[in-house]
Amino acid sequence: MKILGIDPGYAIVGYGLLDYNRNRFTVLSYGSIITKAGDDFSQRLKVIYDDYTEILETYKPDVISIEKLFFSRNVTTAIDVAQARGLILLGAAQHNIPIYEYTPMQAKQALVGYGGADKHQMQEMTRQILHLKSVPKPDDTADALAMAICHAHVSGSLMRFMPKR
Amino acid sequence: MKILGIDPGYAIVGYGLLDYNRNRFTVLSYGSIITKAGDDFSQRLKVIYDDYTEILETYKPDVISIEKLFFSRNVTTAIDVAQARGLILLGAAQHNIPIYEYTPMQAKQALVGYGGADKHQMQEMTRQILHLKSVPKPDDTADALAMAICHAHVSGSLMRFMPKR
Repeated sequence: MKILGIDPGYAIVGYGLLDYNRNRFTVLSYGSIITKAGDDFSQRLKVIYDDYTEILETYKPDVISIEKLFFSRNVTTAIDVAQARGLILLGAAQHNIPIYEYTPMQAKQALVGYGGADKHQMQEMTRQILHLKSVPKPDDTADALAMAICHAHVSGSLMRFMPKR
Repeated sequence: MKILGIDPGYAIVGYGLLDYNRNRFTVLSYGSIITKAGDDFSQRLKVIYDDYTEILETYKPDVISIEKLFFSRNVTTAIDVAQARGLILLGAAQHNIPIYEYTPMQAKQALVGYGGADKHQMQEMTRQILHLKSVPKPDDTADALAMAICHAHVSGSLMRFMPKR
């Protein structure tokens, strides 16, 4: 199962693509889409959409895992993150890829086993699970990989609990 | 100048297309894109994107006018409106169409001449300016036409104040 994890944003969109098979992960690709602060916002959205579409068409993920959006901090930033996040959902529908949303707490629970885990613990656990030498940079990329692992763990445990036929 | 006014949303996206020439308006088209409440949210975004793209390609507007987003009421609804609104901005960038944003207060000022005008006054003024027999339904359509008129009035007055060469 090829899982694409996405950390949504408008300045940086983190992505991480994992193959998950028999409880083992293979890292296929990760990185981030970066847009220029000085550019027109519509133009920045176009960059995100184009790069994201290319990722979908190159790697053909089976499923997308994305962080659920909360509005706690800066409202103006949150509006722009939501506007950019709409494109991620659109691309999923355009390519017929199911998309799953997880809260930060669900992701922490799924990786560290504790919903109150901090950012450092999450990144270190992501590094260990994927056997990486260091935590991928920027944070958005590490967060995207964590989302992909989260979906693998949650869907894996769901399958284990499903009755065998 | 062909102006496309948009009232963003995820359940209903209102649109209104006007030609504005020598201070006169010609109504080219108006209506609304409606998505099904029961459908997957990503799928609803795809319907909006597809219909909106068709409008852009059919009418080839010179400019798009859209309401600026505020987060006062329901936050969950606001997130979804913002996610859908991202597609409107994306389409503008994809078709190289400049997009202008106006606050509700700017629109009221531009149509009624008074930033505190109520919804009924705005709709009635939209109807009168465009010589329509009745106020277009749903409200989202009337609001979209108002956004198009707003841009015409604002850009028109800007041009009048520009020095002649």
